[in-house]
Amino acid sequence: MNPLDANVAGNVHGGTILRFVDEAASIVAYKHARSNVVTASIDRMDFYSPVHIGDLLRLSASINYVHRTSMEVGVRVEAENPVTGRVRHTGTCFLTHVALDKNGKPVPVPPLKLETEEERRRWAEAEIRREARLKQIGKLQDPPKA
Amino acid sequence: MNPLDANVAGNVHGGTILRFVDEAASIVAYKHARSNVVTASIDRMDFYSPVHIGDLLRLSASINYVHRTSMEVGVRVEAENPVTGRVRHTGTCFLTHVALDKNGKPVPVPPLKLETEEERRRWAEAEIRREARLKQIGKLQDPPKA
Amino acid sequence: MNPLDANVAGNVHGGTILRFVDEAASIVAYKHARSNVVTASIDRMDFYSPVHIGDLLRLSASINYVHRTSMEVGVRVEAENPVTGRVRHTGTCFLTHVALDKNGKPVPVPPLKLETEEERRRWAEAEIRREARLKQIGKLQDPPKA
Amino acid sequence: MNPLDANVAGNVHGGTILRFVDEAASIVAYKHARSNVVTASIDRMDFYSPVHIGDLLRLSASINYVHRTSMEVGVRVEAENPVTGRVRHTGTCFLTHVALDKNGKPVPVPPLKLETEEERRRWAEAEIRREARLKQIGKLQDPPKA
Amino acid sequence: MNPLDANVAGNVHGGTILRFVDEAASIVAYKHARSNVVTASIDRMDFYSPVHIGDLLRLSASINYVHRTSMEVGVRVEAENPVTGRVRHTGTCFLTHVALDKNGKPVPVPPLKLETEEERRRWAEAEIRREARLKQIGKLQDPPKA
Amino acid sequence: MNPLDANVAGNVHGGTILRFVDEAASIVAYKHARSNVVTASIDRMDFYSPVHIGDLLRLSASINYVHRTSMEVGVRVEAENPVTGRVRHTGTCFLTHVALDKNGKPVPVPPLKLETEEERRRWAEAEIRREARLKQIGKLQDPPKA
Repeated sequence: MNPLDANVAGNVHGGTILRFVDEAASIVAYKHARSNVVTASIDRMDFYSPVHIGDLLRLSASINYVHRTSMEVGVRVEAENPVTGRVRHTGTCFLTHVALDKNGKPVPVPPLKLETEEERRRWAEAEIRREARLKQIGKLQDPPKA
Repeated sequence: MNPLDANVAGNVHGGTILRFVDEAASIVAYKHARSNVVTASIDRMDFYSPVHIGDLLRLSASINYVHRTSMEVGVRVEAENPVTGRVRHTGTCFLTHVALDKNGKPVPVPPLKLETEEERRRWAEAEIRREARLKQIGKLQDPPKA
Repeated sequence: MNPLDANVAGNVHGGTILRFVDEAASIVAYKHARSNVVTASIDRMDFYSPVHIGDLLRLSASINYVHRTSMEVGVRVEAENPVTGRVRHTGTCFLTHVALDKNGKPVPVPPLKLETEEERRRWAEAEIRREARLKQIGKLQDPPKA
Repeated sequence: MNPLDANVAGNVHGGTILRFVDEAASIVAYKHARSNVVTASIDRMDFYSPVHIGDLLRLSASINYVHRTSMEVGVRVEAENPVTGRVRHTGTCFLTHVALDKNGKPVPVPPLKLETEEERRRWAEAEIRREARLKQIGKLQDPPKA
Repeated sequence: MNPLDANVAGNVHGGTILRFVDEAASIVAYKHARSNVVTASIDRMDFYSPVHIGDLLRLSASINYVHRTSMEVGVRVEAENPVTGRVRHTGTCFLTHVALDKNGKPVPVPPLKLETEEERRRWAEAEIRREARLKQIGKLQDPPKA
Repeated sequence: MNPLDANVAGNVHGGTILRFVDEAASIVAYKHARSNVVTASIDRMDFYSPVHIGDLLRLSASINYVHRTSMEVGVRVEAENPVTGRVRHTGTCFLTHVALDKNGKPVPVPPLKLETEEERRRWAEAEIRREARLKQIGKLQDPPKA
């Protein structure tokens, strides 16, 4: 992280981290779908603690859940101090990507093989998030105007 | 929006829009708090339709809700075609910002005066979102590992 | 305004501000002409006082004058300190844009409706600037070689 | 000039060229004054013809005129087609820079030695431009509001 | 790799790849030395085949050799086509970094533990490169003037 | 050189300088070949001393040697302190570029006219470098894996 990514206090902008998170998530979704993808929503992004100038940013992204033409991608954000080697978990993000064909129409994505306990846990948690979202949309009838 | 903001299909990256959204939200939060602020979370960002190269990006941000040291900011994203003048509502984002003092400790923010019907509706909807979040956190005991 | 826009003394480069000014002027000209436009000249740009890192840059652009295929655009540059809320008028720029068709040939632009006193004052002052320019060109026969 | 500097028609933005022009002028002013400098005004910038993607941009800047703490800098903008080797004169800009001491106060700049015919012509033309500017300011009493 | 990283033919600039290579090498050197590092030389960079817009760039960097205050870092550059999954080895670079203390003076770096056959092969090849360099410098007495 | 080009210690990144070096070399190669060119290798880049924020970067590039479809380009990197006027020779780079036709196939480049003693010295030194490279490749049979 360079000075140009940060505010005067030396903390990296949330928007800068989001740009990297979206890029990492898009690559993972692209490789799973083997087709063009588009970010449909950021379902949630939590920033636990600040990332500083000089930190190395480490992003791990995985496909958690697949539903017809969409995928939930989870991204874990870590900041590594290169001098001490200490790694901190500074943020978590869940995004939904949709696969598109050449005309920009949604296309089905391959199923997700759940092989480890970890993968099954991620799938289950993604389902809970999905249900909570659908329930919340029911409560707010009108499209929100920001 | 310039070619460098977009993918090969001419659609602007979600991450690019998020960077502008975070910047607009931070400015509004900064001006309300009259102190340094940090993005604590993206509570939700929905992309309704793509933004194209050549579109003008219009962002309106407002403080919807205030709770001790934090603020919910809503951002409406519009894309204007400068030739036809047509404006499309392409996205909505809700973020939570926290005000910080010079030592990086959270500080109380001024109360929000609710004067119009619109402002009261925004406050009420922000409360619903906040409750849904707190309920969801209760279900997922362990911190999610992306 | 971020550190990367400024010199070591914390003052934003004139060239950085000019890039934003040209962008704002081009958008306003584009929307008036409803066709492609090109910057033909910067007739004058005055920097009254420095813009600092951390300031919010506010640009207001308007079409002052129209002559066949060209438009004079005026841009007011203000810097807002987001903590104190104080706004300073830091610069003024007058630019001439020309409308172009798809083959890059100049095309007539719509007339300008002068409805307010302010709009008529702007038109009158733009005419004075235009006459002064034409008179000055007459004095300097040869194209200047910088 | 790269695609990111240009509009969809392949013409480089005026604002991009201005940024380079201001940078070249600032370097020349800095080296003459041997102190910090700030751009006080763009007295005029004319774009004669478009610069295209793939062109090499060539800038020549010189100090034309010196008056106590300020300098008029002229910049000649040329575009070279690297395949044909053809060079076009695409723009001319006149800027005024002011030298500053460490506290940001204007400081006198060294005198300009006029040795060639060319240098005396530039000085004379800069004086005419300066007089025309002072005369015009007299006509427009109030500071213009863009 | 985005359009802004490439030339008109869609091939990514060598200079763009070098910037990423130097960044990857610096991170690996920084983590080994646990101190500030500076790039002392690019000993060689070969571009085997072009990288295209849309490719994912994959960089693997390792410390090959250590000599008092300097380290030879090797970087393997691969381009992955995200649709087909095909990975091509498009370049190899060898760089020498020097570790610096807080005053910018060279400091010794930790020794390199050679545990695998691969690591011993890398060390041996780095020694051959180092000897070839020292021999070549002997032949060219005067510092080259480019 | 701006703050965004440098590390926390105020020294400009090697990767940033390499990007400018590659750009300068490509321009010179492009103008000699009068066709598209691609960077085939960085044969060597030495950084003699650091470049600081605020320095002016001066690059001189020349074609040293031509062999069928390839050219060796030498680039001299200098840093000028604009206040004192002092110029330091901070780096030297040798690169090999290949000329390409419209289908990306190598095409012969024009011969190099050697007129001065300096030009003949450069050619001779480039030949020594070329032989040393070819000899070294013979020793390392397998393509190196970084």
